[in-house]
Amino acid sequence: MPRMHGTLAAMSSAEKRIQDAAMRLFAERGVTQVTVSELAEAAGVARGTIYNRKSDVGTLFEQLATRLTEEMTTRIDATMAGIDDPARRIATGIRLFVRRAHEEPPWGRFVARFGATAPTMRALLAAGPSRDLEQGVRGRRLVLRREQIAAALAMMSASVLGAIVSVVDGHQTWREAGSTTAELFLRALGVPLDEARALSKEELPPLEAETQ
Amino acid sequence: MPRMHGTLAAMSSAEKRIQDAAMRLFAERGVTQVTVSELAEAAGVARGTIYNRKSDVGTLFEQLATRLTEEMTTRIDATMAGIDDPARRIATGIRLFVRRAHEEPPWGRFVARFGATAPTMRALLAAGPSRDLEQGVRGRRLVLRREQIAAALAMMSASVLGAIVSVVDGHQTWREAGSTTAELFLRALGVPLDEARALSKEELPPLEAETQ
Repeated sequence: MPRMHGTLAAMSSAEKRIQDAAMRLFAERGVTQVTVSELAEAAGVARGTIYNRKSDVGTLFEQLATRLTEEMTTRIDATMAGIDDPARRIATGIRLFVRRAHEEPPWGRFVARFGATAPTMRALLAAGPSRDLEQGVRGRRLVLRREQIAAALAMMSASVLGAIVSVVDGHQTWREAGSTTAELFLRALGVPLDEARALSKEELPPLEAETQ
Repeated sequence: MPRMHGTLAAMSSAEKRIQDAAMRLFAERGVTQVTVSELAEAAGVARGTIYNRKSDVGTLFEQLATRLTEEMTTRIDATMAGIDDPARRIATGIRLFVRRAHEEPPWGRFVARFGATAPTMRALLAAGPSRDLEQGVRGRRLVLRREQIAAALAMMSASVLGAIVSVVDGHQTWREAGSTTAELFLRALGVPLDEARALSKEELPPLEAETQ
């Protein structure tokens, strides 16, 4: 399997099938419990299709985690291109993640399982919100001391992953889980209660396709 | 190894050594990567001391997770016996966890690694805060709708675990991590900013010993 950069559209059908099967199997079993044979069978390709491209399971996982996170980051950036307010960007980003977990449960399960631990995912997932928080602190839109930004980021990613688990397990709708998480997190950032609630209930734009 | 109820004082020296070794080994390697032989060696007891008591590693882990969580829950309850305000109870509980992770790093690493996943730990850890949140909502001390309580609980436990990781990894002091987490979480519960800050900075009582 080649490095998974580029757009989804540019992926061959076999690559797409391998990616989907890998996402599902890794999310179900963890990285150490999946073999190349199982992956090939689940994807409906010959083992050689995976072996020939010089990959082992650990490498496949790293590529997939990076690829999926980059893809989502790119699409969220595109979706929020016209939104300047850091508070609104944060609420929108949180809800886009939770809605996608509802719409694509295998994706949601993968993110829920590895989002907090796979280093590439952690770093990529934190980059956008980190910029929003810093901009919000600079512009005094958010009431947060600079040294609290790291803790706020940790609280945000943990809350979003918790909301995703709740949605893929069927305990909450994406609307309820996404809006509650956005509302409570905006409050934590010092956004007044009424405004936090309003921002967490706004109509959510569709997630833009990846067209970089 | 007998069931790990009762007080620490009532544990034999060998039991205490086994518990300490198990806490450290499980936290370092995960449950599936520890054998009874390694445990016995780390605890400085004969393998028979563990085998004779009819335990396997999975059972040992469950007993330890339950025992450690019960012990902390009992001690926190005793420490907060005189505190009625739900907001103050929540801030105090968060900070007691983070401070203990600083004072006893193996304990902190164990909680950080398994607090979100081991079912007995999850249930026990959520029970106290759950009562505080419900009481705070009933008394209108907290601004939270009833259906938001589950998400708030998830946000709290994830934030506390994140703070503990940050402390045991040396990225933040327990004071900074504990106070920031308490402050941001109280804000999320609708506590006014000034008050959230004040409550998160109060002098923290010593953790009561387990004397039930």
